[in-house]
Amino acid sequence: MIDLNAMGNTELLLLNRSEIASMISSNDYLTAMESAFRKRSEGKALAPGLMHADVEDGEFHIKSGGLKLDKTYFALKANGGFFGNRTKFGLPNIIGLIILFDGSNGRPLSIMDSTEITSKRTAATTAVAAKYLARSNSSTVTICGSGNQARVQLRALMNVISSISQVYVWGTNQNKIETFSKEMSEELKMNIEATDNLADVAPKSDIIITCTSAKKFFLNKEYVRPGTFISAVGADSPDKQELDPQLLASGKLVVDILEQCAHVGELHHAIEANLMSAGDVYGEFGDIVSGKIEGRTNSEEIIIFDTTGSAIQDTAAAVAVYEKAISLEKGKLLNIYE
Amino acid sequence: MIDLNAMGNTELLLLNRSEIASMISSNDYLTAMESAFRKRSEGKALAPGLMHADVEDGEFHIKSGGLKLDKTYFALKANGGFFGNRTKFGLPNIIGLIILFDGSNGRPLSIMDSTEITSKRTAATTAVAAKYLARSNSSTVTICGSGNQARVQLRALMNVISSISQVYVWGTNQNKIETFSKEMSEELKMNIEATDNLADVAPKSDIIITCTSAKKFFLNKEYVRPGTFISAVGADSPDKQELDPQLLASGKLVVDILEQCAHVGELHHAIEANLMSAGDVYGEFGDIVSGKIEGRTNSEEIIIFDTTGSAIQDTAAAVAVYEKAISLEKGKLLNIYE
Repeated sequence: MIDLNAMGNTELLLLNRSEIASMISSNDYLTAMESAFRKRSEGKALAPGLMHADVEDGEFHIKSGGLKLDKTYFALKANGGFFGNRTKFGLPNIIGLIILFDGSNGRPLSIMDSTEITSKRTAATTAVAAKYLARSNSSTVTICGSGNQARVQLRALMNVISSISQVYVWGTNQNKIETFSKEMSEELKMNIEATDNLADVAPKSDIIITCTSAKKFFLNKEYVRPGTFISAVGADSPDKQELDPQLLASGKLVVDILEQCAHVGELHHAIEANLMSAGDVYGEFGDIVSGKIEGRTNSEEIIIFDTTGSAIQDTAAAVAVYEKAISLEKGKLLNIYE
Repeated sequence: MIDLNAMGNTELLLLNRSEIASMISSNDYLTAMESAFRKRSEGKALAPGLMHADVEDGEFHIKSGGLKLDKTYFALKANGGFFGNRTKFGLPNIIGLIILFDGSNGRPLSIMDSTEITSKRTAATTAVAAKYLARSNSSTVTICGSGNQARVQLRALMNVISSISQVYVWGTNQNKIETFSKEMSEELKMNIEATDNLADVAPKSDIIITCTSAKKFFLNKEYVRPGTFISAVGADSPDKQELDPQLLASGKLVVDILEQCAHVGELHHAIEANLMSAGDVYGEFGDIVSGKIEGRTNSEEIIIFDTTGSAIQDTAAAVAVYEKAISLEKGKLLNIYE
């Protein structure tokens, strides 16, 4: 194994998307997310930082976070969001990178693609949350949204909740939900039904995942039956919304980062509508993982997880990737300090 | 020349310290800084962003900025400050990197060492400011501080003001100022006198540069004669201070970024002491470069430049480095999106 901590060493490990994808399993992401939320609850996560810059055709999102593990790590994620990229430049609309630093001396340890990690850690977070917050015999799932994140979410969830036997995919684009249904049915070897009628499938569901770019809620309070677990993934900026604020106010609301949800998550809409205050939130997910507060206490409660995403998850995932790469001697070692 | 803008290309250019140092001249930095400040005045610079994270043995400073040049560029600088690094890890106390992005599509273009660029752009900024704000026949200079930045500052200044014939270096560490005097006298082929008596040399000076890590001012108002230009480089955090606030209040104060100086520069101490308000500042340096306001209008005024440093300068310098590297085919092309 390479000794990157040798006195005076300033080498950086460059890791590309396919290396990351090939090294890290769904289970690795699950373990990393569970650990990240536990560390936050134990006071071993730095407060996540957030910066934003608007440019003509898009925006830059900068997130920073840190975790005290065997050693302290700090990570910075810079993502560009440019929605004309595909057609104008042949580039992904979301493009960015993560830099992982040694938190004990500030040395950059690794530079890696951010999109693979962001997508997988987001899905793994829903899956870990379902483990703690969904009914253990959950069998029916509705996925709202049919983009790439919807696929990754479903794969991660299936990996954790083995009792799932029926999946619905809901969306407003008939072509997209049918393609999703066809491709994911084959991949997961089960019947995934496409529907544009959420009022029909949501009330049959034990788990509902919302991962769309909606700006107006579509999951009404009356669609959701007792005992359901909902992971609200889409809303990560103030103008995005997927859940009826009445649903939030009537359920048991768990958040990833309270302050962030109050500003950019579903919670922020319920606060704006004067239906809730931050004090009405049941708790942060990390406190459930660490055992400070209970997760699901009965089979009747509706539990909603408002997950906005933070650099704590990115840090945990980047550390998992980095440590795996070191042990497998993957990636390119480079030095910008020579 | 490599066509890095080919449709769909996602290659990154890695540039290390020695490549940067060998490609970019003092004049390149001067041109870049002059352009950066002019662009800010013309409304073609993004508002600089700032993030900070404290960890056990140090801190991370994250700065972001952008410039609308022939194309729009966005840059992110992440610097760690860990003051035990040298002894504990054999690493520099300040270590970090700059990532340059294409502002039209969010694609990371280049990753480079930040320390070489930070040091050189800081010095070039003083030199450009001296061109606009010092008397054109300035002959006597006092440098307060004898660290590496003091050397880089003096070199850049000498390059711009050809009439300099006498230099004093002032400091409280006798060994350090004598070494500075000996080495820089040889390098610049002139007599550089070391002194611990600022009250003696400051009043003879046309230009005074302060670049120390002082936390209490040492340059008193009564030391400074009419017509002097002062570049106050050291203060870049609220606890640092080099200039008598009375000196600031009585002179003509030019700032790099008004909002930033009011929070972390010399200006912030004068505001705290109720000697000045932000409204008493003569103007931002960019507005002098662009011709919106006049620079020096007579040979009697004391002009003070409060320079705290921002990512606008880093962006301009990183662009100069990147464009030069492309034209010279320097650096390593890598792809983290494969």
